[in-house]
Amino acid sequence: MQTLYVELGERRYPIFIGSDLNPQSLLAPYIHGQQVMIVSNETVAPLYLEHYQQSIQALGKTVATCILPDGEKYKNSEHLNLIFDALLQAGFNRDCTVLALGGGVIGDMAGFASACFQRGVYFIQVPTTLLSQVDSSVGGKTGINHPLGKNMIGAFQQPQVVLADMSQLDTLPDRELSAGLSEVIKYALLGDSDFLVWLEQNMDGLVQRDAHLLAEAVYRSCAHKARIVANDEKEQGERALLNLGHTFGHAIESYLGYGEWLHGEAVAVGMIMAADLSHRMGWLSADDVQRTKNIILRANLPAVCPKIPLDQFLSYMSHDKKVLNGQLRLVLMKQLGKAVITKEFDVELMKQAILANQR
Amino acid sequence: MQTLYVELGERRYPIFIGSDLNPQSLLAPYIHGQQVMIVSNETVAPLYLEHYQQSIQALGKTVATCILPDGEKYKNSEHLNLIFDALLQAGFNRDCTVLALGGGVIGDMAGFASACFQRGVYFIQVPTTLLSQVDSSVGGKTGINHPLGKNMIGAFQQPQVVLADMSQLDTLPDRELSAGLSEVIKYALLGDSDFLVWLEQNMDGLVQRDAHLLAEAVYRSCAHKARIVANDEKEQGERALLNLGHTFGHAIESYLGYGEWLHGEAVAVGMIMAADLSHRMGWLSADDVQRTKNIILRANLPAVCPKIPLDQFLSYMSHDKKVLNGQLRLVLMKQLGKAVITKEFDVELMKQAILANQR
Repeated sequence: MQTLYVELGERRYPIFIGSDLNPQSLLAPYIHGQQVMIVSNETVAPLYLEHYQQSIQALGKTVATCILPDGEKYKNSEHLNLIFDALLQAGFNRDCTVLALGGGVIGDMAGFASACFQRGVYFIQVPTTLLSQVDSSVGGKTGINHPLGKNMIGAFQQPQVVLADMSQLDTLPDRELSAGLSEVIKYALLGDSDFLVWLEQNMDGLVQRDAHLLAEAVYRSCAHKARIVANDEKEQGERALLNLGHTFGHAIESYLGYGEWLHGEAVAVGMIMAADLSHRMGWLSADDVQRTKNIILRANLPAVCPKIPLDQFLSYMSHDKKVLNGQLRLVLMKQLGKAVITKEFDVELMKQAILANQR
Repeated sequence: MQTLYVELGERRYPIFIGSDLNPQSLLAPYIHGQQVMIVSNETVAPLYLEHYQQSIQALGKTVATCILPDGEKYKNSEHLNLIFDALLQAGFNRDCTVLALGGGVIGDMAGFASACFQRGVYFIQVPTTLLSQVDSSVGGKTGINHPLGKNMIGAFQQPQVVLADMSQLDTLPDRELSAGLSEVIKYALLGDSDFLVWLEQNMDGLVQRDAHLLAEAVYRSCAHKARIVANDEKEQGERALLNLGHTFGHAIESYLGYGEWLHGEAVAVGMIMAADLSHRMGWLSADDVQRTKNIILRANLPAVCPKIPLDQFLSYMSHDKKVLNGQLRLVLMKQLGKAVITKEFDVELMKQAILANQR
């Protein structure tokens, strides 16, 4: 087992990364109060809920559960309210802990609920997908979607601890494993060309779910994100680099409807669009763009998105949170492994990059 | 005009207290971004919205508005969503300001919306009731009600600035003026016996809306709360003193249905119950209890609540946020002007204090 600390001063917390982790001993120091609400979904609960429930009950805690339907389309205020209902019906008070057992959607919703319930209770994350292990377990971003935009309503809420158990990835569908690898690739592209080389060497093993390689990929990804988040918790600056591929990706997800494409799939195409635009800006070579496409394809991810009318694509992009004073900022690459946030880009070239990577 | 600073380090902010304040000059330094959403209600908007809208437009800002129905019963997730809808329909981004123009309900909802919209935007408060001027304009507590409890969902969100304009109290109904005086009395009872004497000397003038006396009462109340909040922003300790009368009061409000009784009215009876229990515990004299009742009655507030079945009263009390590890904590008075938080009270005496102050 490896342990990585996210350095956030008073809100410093550990991420435990390994296989067959023991929740009882690892979580014990981090559960506050006597009441624990496990929030999970209908896919994950049958697989892992009982194990966590028993482990926490063995610590003498009261455990209640809230099982939501599985899917991004349920990440809305209606289903958020089900968590509040469960907390209040179980008589939970301010001194309780909410544990998210599931992927990014469950982490976002349980985390946001824990931030708002009684104006803030304690939060623990057990991410069960590769995507949530490398992405949402670091950074404290929680929230829900709104019909007019993704993640428009939320809070910064740091967990007490994160348990990333590679054994739980055994039950993950291939498509979701790939979606997680999309974010892993993102860390390499935005800030770590050595990691990109490592991924090019090990992508086949990762796709074949080698637990050792997966743990290493999760560790390196989380370490990367943890460093950025520690420097810029509230996304005033550097943290926005983590949105590489996301502004394009959000437009794809929004147009297709949340949940049709997985987040990581949309981000994969978004990263290619960002690489393509960076090339058109004269920053990346044609080879760099091809290398970006290759690693994405080797992770069994899509490299093009369906045809989306350009005006709608741009409209969705303009709803992105990275719009500042009405001005769109994009994360582009000066070179592979070195991303920058910029509002200095040619809109015509951006349109070309979008159109060039549609089916 | 008097200016009071709430000392919260980086989140330090001023409260401007006076009559006929000029929003354009006073708000100018505190509006962030180009977009301002004014959230108000159907009662306040016809009176003051145009004035604020024009003042802010004169600063070159884009102003959008969201007008909610008036009343505590609308302080729920459904109406909170109307604010998010308005923000997104108006195309607001992360760099915007939400201005609450109204009483406590509008402040709580607009504040909570500003805390959650895009994970946090800027917030300005223009409280238009005495209650919100002395209570919700200091402390950063925002939120909404849940069918199972008041203020169960929310966030700590500090404003950039508060404008407390006594001129706006001219249009306040008598009953709401009294409800505001209830919280003013609370500050005296919990921590300032000199202020209690001042109130006993000046209550008639306050009830007659003497602007000078009202400004003084608002200043002293806010100063008191600001000092406590600066010491204990997240209500780990001392801040809970501000809940004098509130645990009893919440039970009254919950049983009667939010909005039937005004918050300040319920708190008034709650403070009498707290004084009564403090007397039964041997801390206050019978005279002290009478003095508490007298100042409350002189503010035209109720001193007794309707008959409420004891088991239901207690059940609502146990849903209060001040329950810690399943144990109810109450704010009682060691003497007039000196409150304490305690879980050491006799439950039978508490029941007597509740029953003795019902109709």
